[in-house]
Order: sequence, then structure tokens, then C-alpha cells
Amino acid sequence: MAGYFITFEGIEGSGKSTQIKLLVAHLIKQQIPHLSTREPGGTPIAEAIRKILLDPLCSEMLPEAELLLYSASRAQHTGELILPALAAGKVVISDRYYDSSTAYQGAARDLDYDVIDLLNSFATFHTVPDLTVLLDLPVEEGFKRIDHRDLDRLEQEDISFTKRFDSSFYLLPKNTHPDTLYWMP
Amino acid sequence: MAGYFITFEGIEGSGKSTQIKLLVAHLIKQQIPHLSTREPGGTPIAEAIRKILLDPLCSEMLPEAELLLYSASRAQHTGELILPALAAGKVVISDRYYDSSTAYQGAARDLDYDVIDLLNSFATFHTVPDLTVLLDLPVEEGFKRIDHRDLDRLEQEDISFTKRFDSSFYLLPKNTHPDTLYWMP
Repeated sequence: MAGYFITFEGIEGSGKSTQIKLLVAHLIKQQIPHLSTREPGGTPIAEAIRKILLDPLCSEMLPEAELLLYSASRAQHTGELILPALAAGKVVISDRYYDSSTAYQGAARDLDYDVIDLLNSFATFHTVPDLTVLLDLPVEEGFKRIDHRDLDRLEQEDISFTKRFDSSFYLLPKNTHPDTLYWMP
Repeated sequence: MAGYFITFEGIEGSGKSTQIKLLVAHLIKQQIPHLSTREPGGTPIAEAIRKILLDPLCSEMLPEAELLLYSASRAQHTGELILPALAAGKVVISDRYYDSSTAYQGAARDLDYDVIDLLNSFATFHTVPDLTVLLDLPVEEGFKRIDHRDLDRLEQEDISFTKRFDSSFYLLPKNTHPDTLYWMP
């Protein structure tokens, strides 16, 4: 892999977008070729999947279907966008990646980690980020920062999840390679 | 499981809809409670996924994303519709089920059967049909029966697949339980 792959993880309101903007501004200044993208989404097909995932009308969605939709979006995103950009030598930055599935579908939805691991691996073509920045924030604090007017399905979920875990749910043994994790308190 | 679960499999144009209509007419006549459904689709969320799968504009879809979308649709369809209907004692008939993934994503797209098996099992909550009716037809014959004016992405694929296999691709060792298969020549 010629490029360098950085993912940002953390709950809604933890500051991922802000940190990514700062990093992108730095890369532009240094004239370093880069691609900034996000999950779920990043390509037309993945964005179509994102729409289903975020639709507040889709409250009937089963955890298993949700995990598979995230994985489908990730496969398309990785194969169509991320891997070609890395092959072209770019720095690729993604707002969320597979650790979010481990955290949300695993810790929060209580799905089997073995299945999640397999799906994470399959959907990423076995790609592991060179660096994962985890933005740590008490859930109550993230909750305060969210604009509560037009919450999508996931933001609504985030709030209901607050009773179940905090940011530490991201620190899972199997998925995030410990060498690649940068914890930002 | 109190009900009875029948799936119909076969290539486009093989007569699945016709046979299902005949069976449904019989069940109505006999006043047997039943549910007739189809994949991909069957519930609002699964139908939204179906739209993405069938969209001719989605020609960039990667085989991995396609398999995961089918699986997502199947999970929602099974958990929300099929299992409750079976639990209520109904005869459930589905136009396509997981054997289609084994055939299309496995045999035709060349994806790993182990992954497909795991996904088939996960997405169906380990449900196995009581009976699978496989409608066998030479691909050239099915090809002739399809209305070629407004082909969706899958029908277009079916045609391109003709050079790669015939109906026998459904006869796969792992997925379709041999005791449940009825081959209709």
C-alpha cells in the first residue's frame, strides 16, 4: 500500500469533523495529495445505503440488517474509493471506519464479535488503517453538542445508547490494531 | 417453528412467479393461512435495499457490496416478516431465498463460499426452508422469456451470466439442504 490511511473514530459530537478539517488544512498547506471521506457513504452506492441507515422512518431496522448495511457500504467505499486512492499514494482520511461497527453493532447492539470481525475483514478487503485517532469524550458531553432539532436515526440511537456505554466501547481487543491507535483525550 | 417454509429458486424467466401463483391459488382454495413474499424485498427497508440492487445506474457495484446488500435485505425480511409468519403457523412462500446468493454471488461472482455460508446463516437467523423448489430451465430459454425492454441491473446480469453457468449452479453442496430440495425439470 503506497499511501497512508487514517481513520477518526468517536461518538457523535466528539469532534471528528473538526479534527479532520484541521488535518486536511495542514495537508493542503503541505501540498500532500489526500482524500477525505466518511462512512457510511463516500461513493454514490454507499451514499444510497447511508440514506437507508439514517432514515428516521427506518426505526424497524433489525441489528443484523444494520450491520450488513454498514458492511455493504464499507465494501463499496473501500473497493471503489479508498484502495485506489491509497494505491495512488494519497493520504486517505475517513470519518469513521470499521471500529464504528465493532462499537455500535457489537458493544451497543450486542451482536456476535466473531461475525463482526469477519464482516469487517471481508468488507474492507482486509485493509487495516495505518493510524486510528479515537476522540474520547464523555457521552453526556457529546450529547450536549449535537443539534437536537433534526436528528437522524443514528443520532437518535446515540442518545439512547448513552445509558449503555461510553467512549471506551471503542477500545476493543480484536479490531483496532493497538499499534495504530492514537487516543485523544 | 409452527408453519411451513417453501422457497422457489431458479434463473430469471424460469417460471417462479407462475408456480407461486398456482400454489397460492391452491392455498386460498384450501383456506390455509399463508404469506407469499419475495427477495430481495418483502418489507419497507428490504424494498429500499432492493431498489439499490436493481438500479441500472448501480453498475459500479462491487460483488462484495452486492452480497452484503442481499444479506441485509434477507436479514430484515426474515426477522421482520418470515419468522413471525412461521411462528403464527402460516405457510410462507418466498420467491428466491439464500440459495440465490450462493448461486449468483458464489458461482457467478466467484466469492468465497465460506463467507457466503456464514452470511446466509447469519442473515436468516439460521432458518432453513422446509422445501426448496428449484425450477430448472436452460439459460437460453429463460433469456427468451424475459421482456428485454426495461431490464433492471439483475436481469442484465443474468444475461451476462449465461456464458458462465446454467441452472445447475443452484445445486450446491452446502446451502440447500438436500432433504428439502425438489427439482422441477
